[in-house]
Amino acid sequence: MTNNISFSRAETCLIMEPSHSNPHGNVHGGELMKIMDNTAGIAAAKHAKGDVVTARVDEIVFHKAIHIGDIVTCVAQLCYVGKSSMQVMVSIGVHELDNYSEPDTALTAFFTMVHMVDNKPAKVPELVVSTKEEEELYKLGEKKHLEIKSKYKK
Amino acid sequence: MTNNISFSRAETCLIMEPSHSNPHGNVHGGELMKIMDNTAGIAAAKHAKGDVVTARVDEIVFHKAIHIGDIVTCVAQLCYVGKSSMQVMVSIGVHELDNYSEPDTALTAFFTMVHMVDNKPAKVPELVVSTKEEEELYKLGEKKHLEIKSKYKK
Amino acid sequence: MTNNISFSRAETCLIMEPSHSNPHGNVHGGELMKIMDNTAGIAAAKHAKGDVVTARVDEIVFHKAIHIGDIVTCVAQLCYVGKSSMQVMVSIGVHELDNYSEPDTALTAFFTMVHMVDNKPAKVPELVVSTKEEEELYKLGEKKHLEIKSKYKK
Amino acid sequence: MTNNISFSRAETCLIMEPSHSNPHGNVHGGELMKIMDNTAGIAAAKHAKGDVVTARVDEIVFHKAIHIGDIVTCVAQLCYVGKSSMQVMVSIGVHELDNYSEPDTALTAFFTMVHMVDNKPAKVPELVVSTKEEEELYKLGEKKHLEIKSKYKK
Amino acid sequence: MTNNISFSRAETCLIMEPSHSNPHGNVHGGELMKIMDNTAGIAAAKHAKGDVVTARVDEIVFHKAIHIGDIVTCVAQLCYVGKSSMQVMVSIGVHELDNYSEPDTALTAFFTMVHMVDNKPAKVPELVVSTKEEEELYKLGEKKHLEIKSKYKK
Amino acid sequence: MTNNISFSRAETCLIMEPSHSNPHGNVHGGELMKIMDNTAGIAAAKHAKGDVVTARVDEIVFHKAIHIGDIVTCVAQLCYVGKSSMQVMVSIGVHELDNYSEPDTALTAFFTMVHMVDNKPAKVPELVVSTKEEEELYKLGEKKHLEIKSKYKK
Repeated sequence: MTNNISFSRAETCLIMEPSHSNPHGNVHGGELMKIMDNTAGIAAAKHAKGDVVTARVDEIVFHKAIHIGDIVTCVAQLCYVGKSSMQVMVSIGVHELDNYSEPDTALTAFFTMVHMVDNKPAKVPELVVSTKEEEELYKLGEKKHLEIKSKYKK
Repeated sequence: MTNNISFSRAETCLIMEPSHSNPHGNVHGGELMKIMDNTAGIAAAKHAKGDVVTARVDEIVFHKAIHIGDIVTCVAQLCYVGKSSMQVMVSIGVHELDNYSEPDTALTAFFTMVHMVDNKPAKVPELVVSTKEEEELYKLGEKKHLEIKSKYKK
Repeated sequence: MTNNISFSRAETCLIMEPSHSNPHGNVHGGELMKIMDNTAGIAAAKHAKGDVVTARVDEIVFHKAIHIGDIVTCVAQLCYVGKSSMQVMVSIGVHELDNYSEPDTALTAFFTMVHMVDNKPAKVPELVVSTKEEEELYKLGEKKHLEIKSKYKK
Repeated sequence: MTNNISFSRAETCLIMEPSHSNPHGNVHGGELMKIMDNTAGIAAAKHAKGDVVTARVDEIVFHKAIHIGDIVTCVAQLCYVGKSSMQVMVSIGVHELDNYSEPDTALTAFFTMVHMVDNKPAKVPELVVSTKEEEELYKLGEKKHLEIKSKYKK
Repeated sequence: MTNNISFSRAETCLIMEPSHSNPHGNVHGGELMKIMDNTAGIAAAKHAKGDVVTARVDEIVFHKAIHIGDIVTCVAQLCYVGKSSMQVMVSIGVHELDNYSEPDTALTAFFTMVHMVDNKPAKVPELVVSTKEEEELYKLGEKKHLEIKSKYKK
Repeated sequence: MTNNISFSRAETCLIMEPSHSNPHGNVHGGELMKIMDNTAGIAAAKHAKGDVVTARVDEIVFHKAIHIGDIVTCVAQLCYVGKSSMQVMVSIGVHELDNYSEPDTALTAFFTMVHMVDNKPAKVPELVVSTKEEEELYKLGEKKHLEIKSKYKK
C-alpha cells in the first residue's frame, strides 16, 4: 500500500487569541508547539489510517515572534517513512491582517510519529513523491531520519 | 476593489480533544460554535483586510454528533456581501480515522460578519464569483441575506 | 405530564474574564455562544428531566459588545415544545459595575434542544403558561417553531 | 447608603463538564473554589458598586462529591459588612437530572471581600436585613466576622 | 508505618500567564486556590501512597497580590495526621524576576485531605518530625486540627 | 557576574488532569511540551534575572507514556551559556502513586533560551559548575551548543 505526500497533508488556520498569550504579550511558545503536535498528528493519522503517537521532536526553530490577533497557518507534511515511524515536517506561517498575501514562516520543526496498533508499533504505507517539490521535501526527511538514527547508534 | 470567493476561503483541520467534550462524551456544541466563529472570522478578515465582528448567526444545524478523537475540517466561505456586512457559510465535516475519504457534513451555519474601522462599520470589497459552484454558493448567500433583511423590516 | 415555563427557567450570572477575550479585547463571540448553549441545555434538561442535545440554533443576534470585567446574566426559558423537541429562548444581559440596575440585552437566540433516551428522541412534558408574559413568550416560540418547520418542508 | 441582603444576591447555574474533572472523575475541588470565588466576587461587586478583591476564605467544606454532568447552583449572599470588608456566604448545591427538586448542599464557604478604589480599601454601603431568614444569615456572618477578627489580635 | 514530613513535601514552580488573569490584571484568586489544591493533593498522595480527596480548606489568606509574569513557588507540607485525615499547610511565594532571592509569602492555607480506598476513608502512615522547624510546623498543624475538631462538636 | 548551575534550577511538580488528555487517554504531547517550555523559561529567567524567549528546542524525546492521574516532576537546569543564549536541559519524570520513589524519566529535551532587553538579545551571567554531576551536565550542554552552531554554518 502506498500514499502520496499530498494525500496526508494537513493544514490548519487559526487566529491567535489572548488565552494563547505569554506574559510578554506574544503567543506562548508551548501553545504553538501544541498546535504543531496536533497538526503533525493529523497528517500522520491520515497516512497511517490509524492511531499515532509522538515519539520525538527535532529542531523546533522560532524564526519570528507571533502576536495576539495574528492569523496563522500550520501545515504538516509527511517527508519520510520507516517501517512504523513517520517523519513529519511542520511549519507555522503568519499572515498580516491588512496585507494578506504569502505568510512569513515563523516556526518549523520535524516530528517523528509512530503508528500504533494494540499499543505496539505497526506498519505504515509507503510514501510516494510526484512533484519536484515533494522530492526535495523527501530528501530533507531522509536526511533528518538518518541524523536521528545515528544518535541512537552512539 | 474586488475579491474572488476563493481568495478568502479559510480551512482549519482539528482533532477533537477530551477537553472539548460534553458530559455525554461527544464534542460540546458550544465548542463547535466557537471553532465556526473563529473560522468565519478568518475568512471575513481576509476578504475585508481588516478587523471584523460577528453581528449574527443563523441556522446552526447539527446534522451529526462529533466524537472525541474525530478529525474535523471546518471550512468558511464568503457567499454574499453588503456594504459593510459579509455573509459567511461555515461547515464542519468529520473524517473517519480508519477510512479517510470525503468528510461527512456534521454542522452548517450562516455567519454575518461586519468590517469595523475605528469601531464603525466600514466598506468591504465586492465579491466576485468564477465557477459554477461559487455561483450556487452566492445564490444561497443572497437568499439568506434577503431573509435576514426582511426580519429587520418587520 | 406538564411543566410550567417558570419551572425550567435557568439563570447564570458570570463575570467576563480575560481568558474569554478576543484579540480586540471584547468577549469572544464563540465564548458567549458556549455560555448560551450551556444555559439552554440546563433549562431543557430540567424540563425533560433527562439528557438533551442541541439540534439547531437560530438567530443569534449580537446587540451590544460585552467587555472584559462585565458582569453578565444569561437566562434560558422554554417557549414551545414539540413531541421530543424544545424551543428555548436564551438572552445575555450585561450589567454595569458602578450602576447595577436592569441589565442591557446584549445577545438573544433560539435553541432547539431534543430530549434523548438511549440515543433516540424521547417524549417531553407539555409546556404550561400561567402569566401574560409567559403567553407572549409562548407565541414567540410557536412562531419560531413554525418558521423552522417550514424550512424542512422545502 | 444602604443595601438589602437580597439586592446583591448572586446565583449561577452551571453544568459540570469533563474539563472540570479531577483524575478520579469527580469535579476538581480547585475548579469549584474558582466558581465560588467568582460568585462571591459578583455579590460583593453588586453591593459595593465597584471593584472588589478576595482577602481571605474560611471553612470551605466539601459535604458531598460533585460528578461530571451534574447541574449545580452556586449562591453567594452578603451576611455582614465592616467598613470596607464584606463577609459573603457561598454555597454550591447539586441537582439530580432525573429528579430536579431542591438541590443537596455540596459545598459551603465564607469569603471575605474588600472594596477597592485606587488600590486602597474603600467604604461599602451598610447591610440591611428584612426577613427572618436574612436575620439568621446576618448572625452567622457577624459570628464569622468576630472569629476572624480575633485571629488577627493574637 | 511512618513517614517524615520532608518525605511528602511537594513544591511547584510556575510562571503566571495571562490566562490566569482576573479582570483587574492580577492573578485570579480562584486560579491560585486551584494551584494550592493540586499541590496539597500531591503532598497528601505521597504521604498516603494512594488516592486522596479534599475534605475542607481553612484560612486561605491573601497577603499580597500576584501579577501576570510573576514566578511563584507553591509549597505543600503535611503538618498533622489523624487516622485517615491529613492536615496540609500550603503557601505560595512570589519571586521578582530582576531580583530573584527569597520569595515573599503571598498566600497561605490549611487543607484537610482524606485518604480514600474503595470510596471509604482509609488509614494513613504516622507523621514523624526530625528538625526543630518541623516540630513547629507540627504544633501549628495540631492546633489547627483541634480547632477544626471543636467546630464539629458544637 | 556568575551564577552556579544550581542557582537557577527550576522544579515543578504537577498532577496530570483529564483536561491534559489526548483522545487515547494519555497526556497530550503538546501539553507536556508546554510544561517543559514554562519550566525552561523559569530557569533561564532566574539565571538571566530578566525576560527570556525560546529560540529553539532540540531532541524532545518521549521515553514513556504519561497517564492521567500520574504525578510528574519537571526539572530544568542550565547546562551551557553563550553571550546571550542559554542551553537548558529539561526532563519530566513520572512517579507512581502507590510506590513513590525515584521517578522514571518520561521526557527529555534541550531548550535554547535567549535573554531579551528592549527586544534585543542581551548578555547573560557566566555559568559556574561546582560538583562532578554539574560538570557532566555542562559537557552535554557544550556538545549540544556546538551541534546547533554547526547547523547554522551550513
